[in-house]
Amino acid sequence: MGSGAERRLAELGIELPAAPTPFGSYVETVQSGKLLFLSGMLPVVDHKPKYVGRLGKELDAEMGRDAVRTATLVGLAATKKHLGSLDRVTRVVKLGVFMATSGDFFDQPPVADAASDLLRDLFGAEKLPVRLVIGVASLPLGMPVEIEVILEVE
Amino acid sequence: MGSGAERRLAELGIELPAAPTPFGSYVETVQSGKLLFLSGMLPVVDHKPKYVGRLGKELDAEMGRDAVRTATLVGLAATKKHLGSLDRVTRVVKLGVFMATSGDFFDQPPVADAASDLLRDLFGAEKLPVRLVIGVASLPLGMPVEIEVILEVE
Amino acid sequence: MGSGAERRLAELGIELPAAPTPFGSYVETVQSGKLLFLSGMLPVVDHKPKYVGRLGKELDAEMGRDAVRTATLVGLAATKKHLGSLDRVTRVVKLGVFMATSGDFFDQPPVADAASDLLRDLFGAEKLPVRLVIGVASLPLGMPVEIEVILEVE
Repeated sequence: MGSGAERRLAELGIELPAAPTPFGSYVETVQSGKLLFLSGMLPVVDHKPKYVGRLGKELDAEMGRDAVRTATLVGLAATKKHLGSLDRVTRVVKLGVFMATSGDFFDQPPVADAASDLLRDLFGAEKLPVRLVIGVASLPLGMPVEIEVILEVE
Repeated sequence: MGSGAERRLAELGIELPAAPTPFGSYVETVQSGKLLFLSGMLPVVDHKPKYVGRLGKELDAEMGRDAVRTATLVGLAATKKHLGSLDRVTRVVKLGVFMATSGDFFDQPPVADAASDLLRDLFGAEKLPVRLVIGVASLPLGMPVEIEVILEVE
Repeated sequence: MGSGAERRLAELGIELPAAPTPFGSYVETVQSGKLLFLSGMLPVVDHKPKYVGRLGKELDAEMGRDAVRTATLVGLAATKKHLGSLDRVTRVVKLGVFMATSGDFFDQPPVADAASDLLRDLFGAEKLPVRLVIGVASLPLGMPVEIEVILEVE
């Protein structure tokens, strides 16, 4: 049966970007048992940053939401490349959302929801993950957000 | 037999707070196999921040310790809600302690020990977790600490 | 047969440091099923910081690479202490690299590669992990880097 995520992806008219390629000596996905770990996913388009800057400084919350959604789609592309089909995802286990902030940007939950909402739309509310949201000093290449994902797969 | 944590909780006269509710699109606990993942736990009372500010700036280490202990108790409440009883915890696997700091606050270990010590008192020294302690720029709603926990459960 | 890491360690003339000891109430390694979790590994020599400071401020990228390599070797020593032999590692699952940065240091990937390259040299490119790289405000005792590792073991 599967998760139905592929059908919902089509219904929502979402086209996944190309699967990401590493910025260094690592791989994008590692599976151990039923757990699929993803590398920190970044808001890239064609391996280049879509946004550079910090939330609450050079970028506002709306740009942050778009960056988070972009990184999530990149992560879904990496997942599909690993599994062949998103329907093999049985649960989104953990979502970490790291945001480069000016230090006094505290409105992280709505920005992080851009990832959670997309995952809910695709996999269903009953597969929502636990979430860890952190405002950090800087991220690779100056990008504003990075997403950590652990999935349970069949 | 179980971990004995429920008995020790009673002996220590600790009353768990109400189980937390999410600040966005996520859930507080996800179990995959024997691993129970918790969302980032925050120092909240009735879904409101108990502390706002950064360690080494608006808040001192002692307040940090109380915030960490508060977040840990919230996490234990989430765990009990999921498992029914803390006695089903067979090991605390990982404890992450994220602290909003001014950038020159380096005395994180004693603050993080407020979580570790509570976990040791309840589950025993032989169940102590690995630990990751990080000083960050900001946390949701301006709170000073956030706790990440992975448990092994039966 | 095992991973061959012990043989490669000898071929490369790398001597592991002493296994680390905790800075607080936690342990350095916890195994649950086939997953071995390591505590945040720091660039210490004899339980004392080898470096103190932030990348892009008091320390440059080359010092950052040496700090990352030092922390990785400390992590390998903890792994060997737990497993008896590094040959029991079947996969490096996840590598997290946390760097204390001035906030405008964006060249994290080459610094993080100091860990990835060492792991690749020992375990082989086919065992490279997923990676999460984050610039943070501060780390325990003012150290510039901290490494998080999850391994799959037999």
